[in-house]
Amino acid sequence: MTPTLTPGAASTAALVLDLAGTFAFALNGALTAVRAARLDIVGVVTLGMITALGGGILRDILLGALPPATFSDWRYLLVATAGGLIAFALSRQLDRITLSITVFDALGLGLFAVTGAARALDLGAGAGQAVLLGGITAVGGGTLRDVLVRRIPSVLSSELYAVPALLGALVVVVADRLGSTAVAWSLAGAALAFTVRMLGVGFRINAPTPPGWRGAPDD
Amino acid sequence: MTPTLTPGAASTAALVLDLAGTFAFALNGALTAVRAARLDIVGVVTLGMITALGGGILRDILLGALPPATFSDWRYLLVATAGGLIAFALSRQLDRITLSITVFDALGLGLFAVTGAARALDLGAGAGQAVLLGGITAVGGGTLRDVLVRRIPSVLSSELYAVPALLGALVVVVADRLGSTAVAWSLAGAALAFTVRMLGVGFRINAPTPPGWRGAPDD
Amino acid sequence: MTPTLTPGAASTAALVLDLAGTFAFALNGALTAVRAARLDIVGVVTLGMITALGGGILRDILLGALPPATFSDWRYLLVATAGGLIAFALSRQLDRITLSITVFDALGLGLFAVTGAARALDLGAGAGQAVLLGGITAVGGGTLRDVLVRRIPSVLSSELYAVPALLGALVVVVADRLGSTAVAWSLAGAALAFTVRMLGVGFRINAPTPPGWRGAPDD
Repeated sequence: MTPTLTPGAASTAALVLDLAGTFAFALNGALTAVRAARLDIVGVVTLGMITALGGGILRDILLGALPPATFSDWRYLLVATAGGLIAFALSRQLDRITLSITVFDALGLGLFAVTGAARALDLGAGAGQAVLLGGITAVGGGTLRDVLVRRIPSVLSSELYAVPALLGALVVVVADRLGSTAVAWSLAGAALAFTVRMLGVGFRINAPTPPGWRGAPDD
Repeated sequence: MTPTLTPGAASTAALVLDLAGTFAFALNGALTAVRAARLDIVGVVTLGMITALGGGILRDILLGALPPATFSDWRYLLVATAGGLIAFALSRQLDRITLSITVFDALGLGLFAVTGAARALDLGAGAGQAVLLGGITAVGGGTLRDVLVRRIPSVLSSELYAVPALLGALVVVVADRLGSTAVAWSLAGAALAFTVRMLGVGFRINAPTPPGWRGAPDD
Repeated sequence: MTPTLTPGAASTAALVLDLAGTFAFALNGALTAVRAARLDIVGVVTLGMITALGGGILRDILLGALPPATFSDWRYLLVATAGGLIAFALSRQLDRITLSITVFDALGLGLFAVTGAARALDLGAGAGQAVLLGGITAVGGGTLRDVLVRRIPSVLSSELYAVPALLGALVVVVADRLGSTAVAWSLAGAALAFTVRMLGVGFRINAPTPPGWRGAPDD
């Protein structure tokens, strides 16, 4: 196990990135609640919190790092709640609410891919597992969100959702294996994930929602 | 960590409340299976058990208290199974099955809010976390139930579902911080949660089920 | 705790059975993604992996055995991914894709029922819990799969899904209590579970999909 959580700039940067990803996903989850399901303020903030904290909690469970940091640390809870409330308050003023939902999701995806992979490495995971766990941290919250509002999850229906997350995680893991834990690599990985995700959204018509499964004749 | 699980009347009362909440949620989950999804006896008992045990298991995972007490302790498994079987046997005789579903859900909500918060405190959680964990214990089983029968979960769609649970948990946590762990406070918190929930149900037309999300044009 | 994982043929056989179950569920999950939801290759492999690994991960969480073996051991990840890719490649050549889905699911169900129960016993679980955990390992992956593609889970809607799994687990646990951990009992239990499941499929018209719950008038 190579502990890289040393006091100082590096871990502060990691925390800031993780809180930024939490905030982005809270905005995304809350706006999804407003847009897709017409929920009230409690529902909006709740879905925002689940989307914001779900990925990190799932990663910590898989790593056996309980209680999960994203649940125990008041800063994550505060940022997640704040994101939900802010999104609720501003939702009516957003002209392009669908675009906002997509952009915040992509931001969260990129940030969590790198912070999730870094945390996995810090807790002793191997390279392959850290890439996978970075991907899981990135897509986990959004998957919970999609299930709760009864959508087929983006991670299944959209080709460039898991892939950009894994790419971002890969950048961090490769850099770590080459001996560098500089924050610049995390930023690069997050930017790569975000860019690939948004390119996928931009160049494709959104992946068609699969027809609801209703006991098709031969199934 | 302030251990308050002392042998004697206090912990027996806590266990009774927790088993009562388990039983209420088992009845609720089983009746939901009968009413909403026309499931057979295995499905009815299974959904009853998931609803009855889900919240406590989720709370214990988040607290890192594994294996979860509600899964290891045979009394919980017995009560959950019994509730499912009883509900299945009596379901045809219930004139007001929908009201029963709602009442049992509210009973379970109130009881689990206080027992969940108390258990979180016993395991060393801070005040804010204990309130949140009491809320999660209360709404967790019902949320799993709703997802499995493909509903938007009550915790998102109904304004007075999470709030009464958090209020009940708050009573227990405030009492604890003021130095009292008397069972009377747990009963008061559970009653408050139950009452607020039922008032919400009574004064509002049930929150409209959000229209199913089917790839709306601009999403 | 009675450790029975002794080096040698017994544990190799257990590993082979567990990997075989993983492979069967990966094929099943991937084919479900192709058939039910028309997903792309990433979605197909992802759903295959979730179906293949989900039951074991859930069991290990409930046992407190973290990180879960099925997530940490690269052989499980490899087999799960391979199953997904193979299913994707061959899906167009399968005439009877629905039958294949059902058969692979039944194979995974039977194998995981026995390996899950055996692992629970190895980690010190009591007899009743090991039967329950074998059942959970067997139905867990399929339940996650069903929720993600928005179906009512087989474990709720199909009478002979949980029951065959519990029967298979019971064979292993009874044999263990009578002093035998011979692989023959695992094979017998898996065969029993598979047979009962397929008989249930064969003799019944598939359990009718419950009508979608859409805010029925009196609910």
